Amino acid sequence: MKRTFASDNYSGVHPDIFAALQRANQGHTPSYGADEYTARATALFRQHFTPDTEVFFAYNGTGANVIGLSAITHSFEAIICSDLAHINVDESTAPEKFLGCKLVTIPTDDGKIYPHDVEHRIQRVDDQHHPQARVISISQSTEYGTVYSVEEVKALAAVARKHNLYLHMDGSRLSNAAVSLDRSFREFTVDAGVDVLSFGGTKNGLMFGEAVLFFNPALAKHFRYIRKQGMQLHSKMRFIGAQFEALLSGDLWKRNAGHANAMARLLEEALRSIPGVTITRPVQANGIFATLPPAIIPALQEEIYFYVWNEKTSEIRLMCSFDTQEEDVRHFSASIRRLIGAIA
Amino acid sequence: MKRTFASDNYSGVHPDIFAALQRANQGHTPSYGADEYTARATALFRQHFTPDTEVFFAYNGTGANVIGLSAITHSFEAIICSDLAHINVDESTAPEKFLGCKLVTIPTDDGKIYPHDVEHRIQRVDDQHHPQARVISISQSTEYGTVYSVEEVKALAAVARKHNLYLHMDGSRLSNAAVSLDRSFREFTVDAGVDVLSFGGTKNGLMFGEAVLFFNPALAKHFRYIRKQGMQLHSKMRFIGAQFEALLSGDLWKRNAGHANAMARLLEEALRSIPGVTITRPVQANGIFATLPPAIIPALQEEIYFYVWNEKTSEIRLMCSFDTQEEDVRHFSASIRRLIGAIA
Amino acid sequence: MKRTFASDNYSGVHPDIFAALQRANQGHTPSYGADEYTARATALFRQHFTPDTEVFFAYNGTGANVIGLSAITHSFEAIICSDLAHINVDESTAPEKFLGCKLVTIPTDDGKIYPHDVEHRIQRVDDQHHPQARVISISQSTEYGTVYSVEEVKALAAVARKHNLYLHMDGSRLSNAAVSLDRSFREFTVDAGVDVLSFGGTKNGLMFGEAVLFFNPALAKHFRYIRKQGMQLHSKMRFIGAQFEALLSGDLWKRNAGHANAMARLLEEALRSIPGVTITRPVQANGIFATLPPAIIPALQEEIYFYVWNEKTSEIRLMCSFDTQEEDVRHFSASIRRLIGAIA
Amino acid sequence: MKRTFASDNYSGVHPDIFAALQRANQGHTPSYGADEYTARATALFRQHFTPDTEVFFAYNGTGANVIGLSAITHSFEAIICSDLAHINVDESTAPEKFLGCKLVTIPTDDGKIYPHDVEHRIQRVDDQHHPQARVISISQSTEYGTVYSVEEVKALAAVARKHNLYLHMDGSRLSNAAVSLDRSFREFTVDAGVDVLSFGGTKNGLMFGEAVLFFNPALAKHFRYIRKQGMQLHSKMRFIGAQFEALLSGDLWKRNAGHANAMARLLEEALRSIPGVTITRPVQANGIFATLPPAIIPALQEEIYFYVWNEKTSEIRLMCSFDTQEEDVRHFSASIRRLIGAIA
Repeated sequence: MKRTFASDNYSGVHPDIFAALQRANQGHTPSYGADEYTARATALFRQHFTPDTEVFFAYNGTGANVIGLSAITHSFEAIICSDLAHINVDESTAPEKFLGCKLVTIPTDDGKIYPHDVEHRIQRVDDQHHPQARVISISQSTEYGTVYSVEEVKALAAVARKHNLYLHMDGSRLSNAAVSLDRSFREFTVDAGVDVLSFGGTKNGLMFGEAVLFFNPALAKHFRYIRKQGMQLHSKMRFIGAQFEALLSGDLWKRNAGHANAMARLLEEALRSIPGVTITRPVQANGIFATLPPAIIPALQEEIYFYVWNEKTSEIRLMCSFDTQEEDVRHFSASIRRLIGAIA
Repeated sequence: MKRTFASDNYSGVHPDIFAALQRANQGHTPSYGADEYTARATALFRQHFTPDTEVFFAYNGTGANVIGLSAITHSFEAIICSDLAHINVDESTAPEKFLGCKLVTIPTDDGKIYPHDVEHRIQRVDDQHHPQARVISISQSTEYGTVYSVEEVKALAAVARKHNLYLHMDGSRLSNAAVSLDRSFREFTVDAGVDVLSFGGTKNGLMFGEAVLFFNPALAKHFRYIRKQGMQLHSKMRFIGAQFEALLSGDLWKRNAGHANAMARLLEEALRSIPGVTITRPVQANGIFATLPPAIIPALQEEIYFYVWNEKTSEIRLMCSFDTQEEDVRHFSASIRRLIGAIA
Repeated sequence: MKRTFASDNYSGVHPDIFAALQRANQGHTPSYGADEYTARATALFRQHFTPDTEVFFAYNGTGANVIGLSAITHSFEAIICSDLAHINVDESTAPEKFLGCKLVTIPTDDGKIYPHDVEHRIQRVDDQHHPQARVISISQSTEYGTVYSVEEVKALAAVARKHNLYLHMDGSRLSNAAVSLDRSFREFTVDAGVDVLSFGGTKNGLMFGEAVLFFNPALAKHFRYIRKQGMQLHSKMRFIGAQFEALLSGDLWKRNAGHANAMARLLEEALRSIPGVTITRPVQANGIFATLPPAIIPALQEEIYFYVWNEKTSEIRLMCSFDTQEEDVRHFSASIRRLIGAIA
Repeated sequence: MKRTFASDNYSGVHPDIFAALQRANQGHTPSYGADEYTARATALFRQHFTPDTEVFFAYNGTGANVIGLSAITHSFEAIICSDLAHINVDESTAPEKFLGCKLVTIPTDDGKIYPHDVEHRIQRVDDQHHPQARVISISQSTEYGTVYSVEEVKALAAVARKHNLYLHMDGSRLSNAAVSLDRSFREFTVDAGVDVLSFGGTKNGLMFGEAVLFFNPALAKHFRYIRKQGMQLHSKMRFIGAQFEALLSGDLWKRNAGHANAMARLLEEALRSIPGVTITRPVQANGIFATLPPAIIPALQEEIYFYVWNEKTSEIRLMCSFDTQEEDVRHFSASIRRLIGAIA
């Protein structure tokens, strides 16, 4: 299938990751994480974050988010997030079923939530009848392709500390955020006050595999049981470890995310120059949101597939990936021009 | 790491499977199963089973079992299984937490359960106070490396039908059972009365991936929601599809399982000839259980790793895999002879 | 303790209910609902509703709501309700934990939700990633003391039918609504399209006990198991049955609710005549919401207790009960006048 | 209905309890436990147990057990109990659904479990794949009407301490055990090492209401949220408080339980003298188990109702209550004699 702008999970596996899988496919190793690949990947995570970060691999983003949140919630508690959060609208009811918790949502236009709105949701503290706020969960980069600044993360962490909450970050596209911010991972996560992090692998070129990171090891006390119970413990773990080792040992994470972000900016530029196309959200990572003349959408999707985000407003979502090519951008913008011209 | 007899998940990925992964790593494909690899693998499953079998991929054996059982249970019901069943002792409390159900267990010496014992557990039917039996779950091959005959499966299916229960099969080592029985998959599953099947991939040479099969499509009505909620839906699904395509399109499933079973028989023979070693369970698939003089176990594990199944009785478990070599068997049995000789 | 306007559950038991409890306290009866009191109360419910209504008693309103909803939801589904709904803000996370479902909320000023807003929440139908809307849940009377008209209920039922959803009604104050509407129970419930109803007892003069009613018996198929699992099955059930028999056999339900509503109207009138007091929600049942000068609230609470609903706006909630007296209303309004005068 | 030997919950409410309900039915009180009756009942529990015992009321035995266990378990843990335990066979799957935990059972002939068998079930400690034992749960008196001695409780508590487990006691018939042992409540509970106790009210003469007691207040830290989430928080709580006040302020608990136990002993004596009747379990509290000639059972049940415990062995269960009369015993034993004579 030709390349699309449908999702960064329409891509395959980056060749360097694939090569690492091949190298790992030698002989026997202990299963369930007691292997050298997992050990080396863990050590790399600790270099990127902190020496005592607890690292656990999981299968997918939903799994990483849900089991990570499970470690920091009781079932009678609430998680505050944006109404657009992946945990709120794209994980079926896995959070509710596995955690028992309520997700308390904040409407968002840019994908982010802000301290004032969060504080407003911390209600009826100590009231046994009411779900008790325990976690603020943010996505970095967000579902709208925007990125929290270090200061924005710190401000939310301050709210969390003030009210005895935890700060959780869904980082299924964390590398894209790091490149966008031009900051090290730790500057806008652990150093900014994040407690638990889902670190995305799949959307940055892995075949499968995400990581859950705990910056306070005490929070991870029971986590291996939770991961197993959450059906997220892989037996041939070396194949997740080897992929993360390849991603994190050099700058592959940055190259892949940087390329995807750059393609998004290129596409943004191209689209901004087309009359009838409006960019609807700030382009800060690898996603572009835009409105098009509705009439051209079916034909355009036929040529290069993408998703319509909002049928009513004809807002579309375009995701760039590590394997998006400049020609894809040129081809796509040319098609839009042509199709708009045809209906003019 | 050198090869061991620890587990069939200490092995890596069979080269043919790996080649299939490589071939699948081309361009973009729709995610979440709407890809051609998944379509072709599904078609192959339908050839091996029935044309209207519903096929869903999952990440791991625990996931496949738990979400498969979720489709055929209400939370106030009970699942009857052996006290050795993987779902009972090796999946943390994932079944209880995700299903709500009680597992009602039957003590077993050979890993199997039998109609008389099952019927005895179908108690207090229609009594609102008591967990209502709804599923009989069996492992094929079993955790003791034994295999249900077609007739044994049919007899359990008859009990299930008589009492309005479903028959679930945990087939994480289904291919080993098929080779052992010298039967097609369908003869001892759908044709014998199995309703829902976990079809194992990982232990037969895959990197990751299992399948949940429904032989009555009506039972799968809501299953895609359950899989998503169970955190078992992979985004880059083509990489599971491609592996199963490679496993099932030719006879790879049979070669891998047949080899593992043959190595187990070879190892059984070798062990039977050693005084002081006793084979404790019938060797019918790729696992051997035996007792050794306890004094030699640590040194033997040092040379070739394996697990002690029962500390009190010095019963050990030896698992053969698709990559077990005859020299591994010879080396292992020679080591036992030497170590026993040294303590004589 | 003297009478308050804090809540209709600050009241005790109506004398006629108490007398029924006393009459029921004779000899032995079968437990768990197989008694004559339960049978007679069930028959009375069927007279008030329909001959084939399925009736189950539960302990409390949270229990009745949660187990009733459990009968009509899968765990991957969503329940649409007002952001003020008791199930959303006053039942801890019992709904999420017991059901697994997500509650999707609609902001409300009058306590009600309306078809347009509900339809807007029925999103991404058949999308496995997204919680699937299955139930519309409304409170009658609402948490703001307002009442859905028959036409309003029918309009919501039409939305439910159109989208294959169920309509659930939390009727913890159903009798107050019936009196307010001057309609029979069935006119604004089963005849208006309600599928499952929590019928409140405690707030209308019972010691304990609520009922869950299913107007389509098929929906109640597994309900006795769900009730037991939901820890809502009482052993000495006759004592719930006897109370409902007393409530429903004559017009006690109407006298109690009618009196509470009348007292609310009286209080509303009294408050409307006081400068500085503003009625904030339509008074249609037994609750009054009003803003007062914040300075007088502590002293007023000292005299006659009530709850502040919203600290920021000084909005208070006043609940009238079957035992509220005209003198309570006069005393309360006189106190407000005096306290406001003192700060003038 | 005439008195039976079916269950101690076929009885109504003891007159002294009823009188307390009547006295409590005056004026308004705060709801949800902030009332004086609850305060006084709590104080009485603290006199009977320890000054810092945390006391929470619940609706029924299943509720008290499940929410009490919830406070001392994680969902990936296991509870060791007898295969006859009420939590295992008479609470639907409420424990599994609400707790997520596995119940690991020990076969029992006398209703009790013993240290050796318990220790044998504490397996695979620290193994992430296996449910981790966390609680030993015993019933006092047991489902077979037997009673743990103080020493037996202490021995189980010692096992719990040694392995870092908690000891939970289902005391739905705790008063019967206290009378049987002729010990104060605290001697065989908190002083013997019990951590969490369900204290039964309903079967000792209450209309409804049980208590959950925590002897280590730290364990109760989150319990009010758990109780609310468990749908066990009553609004008009004074009516539970008042009943327990009546039960515990004098010796009513002892009179009721003592009478029931005495009637059981009387019945035991009467039955032992009848050829063809065999007492099958030690009679130590208010239950008698016996085998009868199967032929007489239907006619006997027609006269005085009771439950057949085991159809295959014709073992019946007879429960005495606070309102069982000597004439009931005489009448029942005479009927047996007559019916056996008729078939001789």
